[in-house]
Amino acid sequence: RNIHFYPEAPCSTLRTALARRFSLKEGNVVISNGADNLISMVANAFVDEGDEVVMATPTFPVYTNTTQIMGGIPVSVPLKDFTHDLPEMLKRVNRKTKLVYVCNPNNPTGTIVTRKALDDFMSRLPERVILTLDEAYFDFVDDPNFPNGLGYVKKGKQVIVLRTFSKVYGLAGLRIGYALGREDLIKGLNQVRDPFPVHRLAQVAAEAALKDRKYEEMSIRMIRDGRKYLYRELERLGLSYVPSQANFILIDFGRDINEVFEGLLREGIIIRPGRIWNYPTSGRVTIGRIGDHRKFIKALKKILK
Amino acid sequence: RNIHFYPEAPCSTLRTALARRFSLKEGNVVISNGADNLISMVANAFVDEGDEVVMATPTFPVYTNTTQIMGGIPVSVPLKDFTHDLPEMLKRVNRKTKLVYVCNPNNPTGTIVTRKALDDFMSRLPERVILTLDEAYFDFVDDPNFPNGLGYVKKGKQVIVLRTFSKVYGLAGLRIGYALGREDLIKGLNQVRDPFPVHRLAQVAAEAALKDRKYEEMSIRMIRDGRKYLYRELERLGLSYVPSQANFILIDFGRDINEVFEGLLREGIIIRPGRIWNYPTSGRVTIGRIGDHRKFIKALKKILK
Repeated sequence: RNIHFYPEAPCSTLRTALARRFSLKEGNVVISNGADNLISMVANAFVDEGDEVVMATPTFPVYTNTTQIMGGIPVSVPLKDFTHDLPEMLKRVNRKTKLVYVCNPNNPTGTIVTRKALDDFMSRLPERVILTLDEAYFDFVDDPNFPNGLGYVKKGKQVIVLRTFSKVYGLAGLRIGYALGREDLIKGLNQVRDPFPVHRLAQVAAEAALKDRKYEEMSIRMIRDGRKYLYRELERLGLSYVPSQANFILIDFGRDINEVFEGLLREGIIIRPGRIWNYPTSGRVTIGRIGDHRKFIKALKKILK
Repeated sequence: RNIHFYPEAPCSTLRTALARRFSLKEGNVVISNGADNLISMVANAFVDEGDEVVMATPTFPVYTNTTQIMGGIPVSVPLKDFTHDLPEMLKRVNRKTKLVYVCNPNNPTGTIVTRKALDDFMSRLPERVILTLDEAYFDFVDDPNFPNGLGYVKKGKQVIVLRTFSKVYGLAGLRIGYALGREDLIKGLNQVRDPFPVHRLAQVAAEAALKDRKYEEMSIRMIRDGRKYLYRELERLGLSYVPSQANFILIDFGRDINEVFEGLLREGIIIRPGRIWNYPTSGRVTIGRIGDHRKFIKALKKILK
């Protein structure tokens, strides 16, 4: 009914709800037009011309674009066993380094860096370098070795944690995400945000989503069950895959991925082909509902035979 | 029902509808998370460290912030008779100038630059300098001397026109705006936009709004009638104001604006006090519905007596 009024700019109610949920202060939270928008804000706030930004490859490509827009230099370190190679990334940190991105779990591989590996990395990272931990998929993790980025924020480390309502809460179509971080870092993000970044309905929907613990549990269960179902079926088909902690699986189809992509497309299924990541026989498949998986496996059998 | 799916990234249907409406190509149109977001995109796409950006003062403050975020230098030229001083702005254009902003009608004064003045300006502006015409309020203009920015786009000039669904269509709470421009300039904006900037409901609402000509006419009539009503009442109260072509009026209350602001606030009315613009006795009052105006005038009489 109030859609003709501008939204409440800082999303105060939602910010308070998130602060309460994570036992943080309001000043540790900023809300944005999806997590993509947070990545732009991180670059706008902290990257200047000539600054270096260390990240993995392949990882979420938006880190590269937003760095380059600011005249920053992306320094890409290849994954090792499909996982962030933190020791190698640390070696690439120098006096020009402004930021490090760690996507945990990583997109497109679904792998995690462990608490031990990240603790070790953080203990050696110079304090002037900001670690941006992209935790878009963290809800789906069941590995007990996963480090919760929130712990670093609470210890006052130079860490920004990115989260989204697009995955576990199923609100991708509304665009809403948030960052948690030390107050000075969140202040920096607030200084570069658009005046009214988050529309009214997204704010209301996100507040409702936070209260709906049943949906959250159902959503997490669906993804974890979906992973198991797909692992079993892929093994039956003799296909290898990267075990995933996210809501997608990187599958090696053992043949030109573009052929597989085209074949699935004809059956009404879109996957992400892996050529852009130099995985010419692999594709990233998003986990959906059980009906979607059955349809996918059926289509796959038709294509592979 | 599909809110868990990501939105259609380039907003194709809406883009086609806008292209058709203005007899342009799809490549001349980009959709964004409100017009504020377009201003960030303009800076991200075209402003590099040390570039100068010429603008009026006072005008919409987001031009300054977004320029500074990129390391650009805002060059502010004072208004003359509350209107952009285009000859003076032209004098400030030099080899470092990358962009010029003209807010037409201007926020917060509601004044316009005329077709003749803008034609003259454009004929002298070096071709490597981009003119960004912020036409957020253009629907409310009734001055026949107003230059429609679209004309420059159609002639292939280096012009980007910014528009919004927040004002005439009453969709401020949903956040949706668009830019019209030469294909190479729009391509530049697309290269820096977030992957999914516009949520699903905004796309649908904007498509519906474009079809609802009756609402559009009603909305324009309401603002024009509101301006006349307020002019008459302000004259009765002996207050001066800047005649406006927008959906707000800059009013000189003849006393410390902070006092007036506080007094109106106590009556449940928020206006924008003018100290930030160096107008210490003026405030910007948004035009609303007739009931809002009556309430405002009644409260004003109480405060001023």
